[in-house]
Amino acid sequence: MKAKKAIETLSITTKLVLPNDTNTLGNLFGGELLAWMDVISSVAAHRHCKRVVVTAAVNNVSFRKAISQASIVTLEAKVTRAFNSSMEIIVDVYDEDPVTGERIKANEGIYTFVAVDQNGGPIEVPELIPESEEEKIRFEGALRRKQLSLILAGKMKPEDATELKKLFFTE
Amino acid sequence: MKAKKAIETLSITTKLVLPNDTNTLGNLFGGELLAWMDVISSVAAHRHCKRVVVTAAVNNVSFRKAISQASIVTLEAKVTRAFNSSMEIIVDVYDEDPVTGERIKANEGIYTFVAVDQNGGPIEVPELIPESEEEKIRFEGALRRKQLSLILAGKMKPEDATELKKLFFTE
Amino acid sequence: MKAKKAIETLSITTKLVLPNDTNTLGNLFGGELLAWMDVISSVAAHRHCKRVVVTAAVNNVSFRKAISQASIVTLEAKVTRAFNSSMEIIVDVYDEDPVTGERIKANEGIYTFVAVDQNGGPIEVPELIPESEEEKIRFEGALRRKQLSLILAGKMKPEDATELKKLFFTE
Amino acid sequence: MKAKKAIETLSITTKLVLPNDTNTLGNLFGGELLAWMDVISSVAAHRHCKRVVVTAAVNNVSFRKAISQASIVTLEAKVTRAFNSSMEIIVDVYDEDPVTGERIKANEGIYTFVAVDQNGGPIEVPELIPESEEEKIRFEGALRRKQLSLILAGKMKPEDATELKKLFFTE
Amino acid sequence: MKAKKAIETLSITTKLVLPNDTNTLGNLFGGELLAWMDVISSVAAHRHCKRVVVTAAVNNVSFRKAISQASIVTLEAKVTRAFNSSMEIIVDVYDEDPVTGERIKANEGIYTFVAVDQNGGPIEVPELIPESEEEKIRFEGALRRKQLSLILAGKMKPEDATELKKLFFTE
Amino acid sequence: MKAKKAIETLSITTKLVLPNDTNTLGNLFGGELLAWMDVISSVAAHRHCKRVVVTAAVNNVSFRKAISQASIVTLEAKVTRAFNSSMEIIVDVYDEDPVTGERIKANEGIYTFVAVDQNGGPIEVPELIPESEEEKIRFEGALRRKQLSLILAGKMKPEDATELKKLFFTE
Repeated sequence: MKAKKAIETLSITTKLVLPNDTNTLGNLFGGELLAWMDVISSVAAHRHCKRVVVTAAVNNVSFRKAISQASIVTLEAKVTRAFNSSMEIIVDVYDEDPVTGERIKANEGIYTFVAVDQNGGPIEVPELIPESEEEKIRFEGALRRKQLSLILAGKMKPEDATELKKLFFTE
Repeated sequence: MKAKKAIETLSITTKLVLPNDTNTLGNLFGGELLAWMDVISSVAAHRHCKRVVVTAAVNNVSFRKAISQASIVTLEAKVTRAFNSSMEIIVDVYDEDPVTGERIKANEGIYTFVAVDQNGGPIEVPELIPESEEEKIRFEGALRRKQLSLILAGKMKPEDATELKKLFFTE
Repeated sequence: MKAKKAIETLSITTKLVLPNDTNTLGNLFGGELLAWMDVISSVAAHRHCKRVVVTAAVNNVSFRKAISQASIVTLEAKVTRAFNSSMEIIVDVYDEDPVTGERIKANEGIYTFVAVDQNGGPIEVPELIPESEEEKIRFEGALRRKQLSLILAGKMKPEDATELKKLFFTE
Repeated sequence: MKAKKAIETLSITTKLVLPNDTNTLGNLFGGELLAWMDVISSVAAHRHCKRVVVTAAVNNVSFRKAISQASIVTLEAKVTRAFNSSMEIIVDVYDEDPVTGERIKANEGIYTFVAVDQNGGPIEVPELIPESEEEKIRFEGALRRKQLSLILAGKMKPEDATELKKLFFTE
Repeated sequence: MKAKKAIETLSITTKLVLPNDTNTLGNLFGGELLAWMDVISSVAAHRHCKRVVVTAAVNNVSFRKAISQASIVTLEAKVTRAFNSSMEIIVDVYDEDPVTGERIKANEGIYTFVAVDQNGGPIEVPELIPESEEEKIRFEGALRRKQLSLILAGKMKPEDATELKKLFFTE
Repeated sequence: MKAKKAIETLSITTKLVLPNDTNTLGNLFGGELLAWMDVISSVAAHRHCKRVVVTAAVNNVSFRKAISQASIVTLEAKVTRAFNSSMEIIVDVYDEDPVTGERIKANEGIYTFVAVDQNGGPIEVPELIPESEEEKIRFEGALRRKQLSLILAGKMKPEDATELKKLFFTE
């Protein structure tokens, strides 16, 4: 199974925020954005493994700023690291200034997808090769985040989370 | 500002999974479930503070099992802890066996909402009082999860995360 | 076939009225509410008989007050009485005051569902046992409403509607 | 205020049943059809009074036969009678045979709409003039149905429902 | 295969523009109207050939005037001409004055549908007989439009488009 | 008003075809695709002029091949030419092979948008500079297509359509 580059999984979607997508304040409804992020992350995961993929977890999504109706919003998703049958995807959300066209980072989300066979059982995926500086940083972080998830789910003892512990002891 | 009990924030919604809600495997589409969880969490947050609330973060959602079309799904959301202007909400998702009626836990999600005034600025919310055993455990965990979020966002140094560090040193 | 209690069929769903759900006056669109009531009634009917159920009739829905955008709306459905293969369900709709949290009854609907086998043919359902005072009143009324439906559909002669006639002759 | 003919209120809508509109059996979802009937009834009511109209009640909808996906469905709504500020509308639903093109009556619904001013208060509407045989029969029935609604809502005593009582005493 | 009259294909749908259907200016969203036109055109095409039909092309849609929220919009589609397995449909869109009830032509669209068998292959459709003056004009124009489409798709040489050339040489 | 390059208007959106988006054959519903094309074209038009834009016409959309459920579909829109206040946009639709990842051109659409001021009146837009070979070919074709539209709308005499006539006389 041939390893693949992170850039090969880049998946982009641009949306216009219509009234249909808004919450009661007239801004993009958080639930709608979560669904958009889920879809584009699944495309990135699929492009990495070419198999059917299903959402395993949303590890973190932070809503930094509200996105108002009529905004042009771009989501960019890339696989950050592959583990056996799972893939971590980070999706960056940009809001576009309507006059200058400048893009402002509005949100960021971390999703995990699993590749499955026709019975829904997990199957192995290729390794991911990070190339850019940012891809390498996110690749490193992915292992710590995975250990953290395992601890929170009670599937790993904190003392075994070697990578994660380094965060707390930096002597 | 009078503290409130966790049970006063309990918000329940029962859904039937229609074809409209499914992914390409015929199961409940992950993005749709994320949106449902977001809405019922916002109701729980609102019931706690009686103010307009906006999604600040999805801290973690784990999809344990696929939910098939025609399932009856129940989401139960409760505020677990309040911090100044933010509230952590945990939403439990149950899938109901169509013959026995037995409920099986299918997913769990942790969301953070912030109470805002008419200019969108954060405003203080009441404290939350946990009563049941589970409410107390979740209340304790909320602080560790908050420290973790702050570290991941670069807003707190790991060595200052007193509660969280205890996870790793249990001498 | 063991009779069941009305309370076992209680089905609750709480909704937030989003812009997507509104009519041209900015209130909850009547057609949307009718669909919500239909879904939660079908859940109550399913919980009673544990079979596939289909809408047979909407007997009456009265819209007492408009529900504005951003409202928190709770629908509570319970089977009121079972007849051979059909079940009458009453669904109460409450609008929640955003400041006091007080619930105000906004609407009420009466639906009839039928349990069907895999060929779509009607199949028998268990009897329903009313317990509370309200459940008993609604149980009694269900028979009169059924007679009325049969008369309106030309399937029963008015003079045979014993229960219904009592409404008009109370000497 | 000039009386209007029933035929002037005729409102027709033809729909194709898409996967998006189906229930878990692959037939047209009852809640969706209720919403379609509500919209076309509101058009008929508007055409009669040329004012903003809101749904006051669904008096009866009977689902005679299931409508399968890919069906061509036609809804025809007409005001049957006007009372002060309210109008009764009957909407007939036809399913079209895909080969012969023959239309089969699938459902029928009776809705009540009220005309409102800019404050939401009820305002008077023109009288309705029935012309065809069916229009006259439905016009007559509308009064009985209105008395029945008033009785069921506890706003009229059964003994005062002169028209309705005749149904039961036809000596 | 018996030829059919244009009037037998007339398909009408009346819609109310809800907030859900609007663009960021509060008018009917162009994409939504395109979808509505597509559906009603497919009904007209089906009524002509009684076979499964699929959209082959949108030849032209002109948006003459914006349609505001709360408008009552009527779409009328008719097959204008049949060619082997394809049919041209013209759909006229009317906006209804809320006070006078007068209908104003708002848009017009030209669609092409193809009849397909169970493998998706094209199958022959009956000829269309235009009767009214407008039907005859549209029937004549359909041939020129077809030639134009073939030229634009590089499937016909301009010099062979006999009907179309007449537009440019009217000596 | 500074002219802009075509490449600056490139707008990309990637979609996953969910059950919600399908027609009765289980393929992407034509009307849904038309709406997607409309939105991404409006983004390209907006990026060119930085003003509010509205759909003026769909000049041509050809559906070359059916797109099945679960497909990954990418739409790429670019302004091809600007005229006073209007812009022609061509949107290319690609279907991605799930195993090889190869992209196949599935459809193509030509839309016209107009830039409007706050009263809805047309306002001038910058000129467009084509650079690549394809951009230049589409830029040239845009003028012929505009003349054609004007003729079809009866706003230009065929003999004045200098560019278009050349198609038919290539001596």
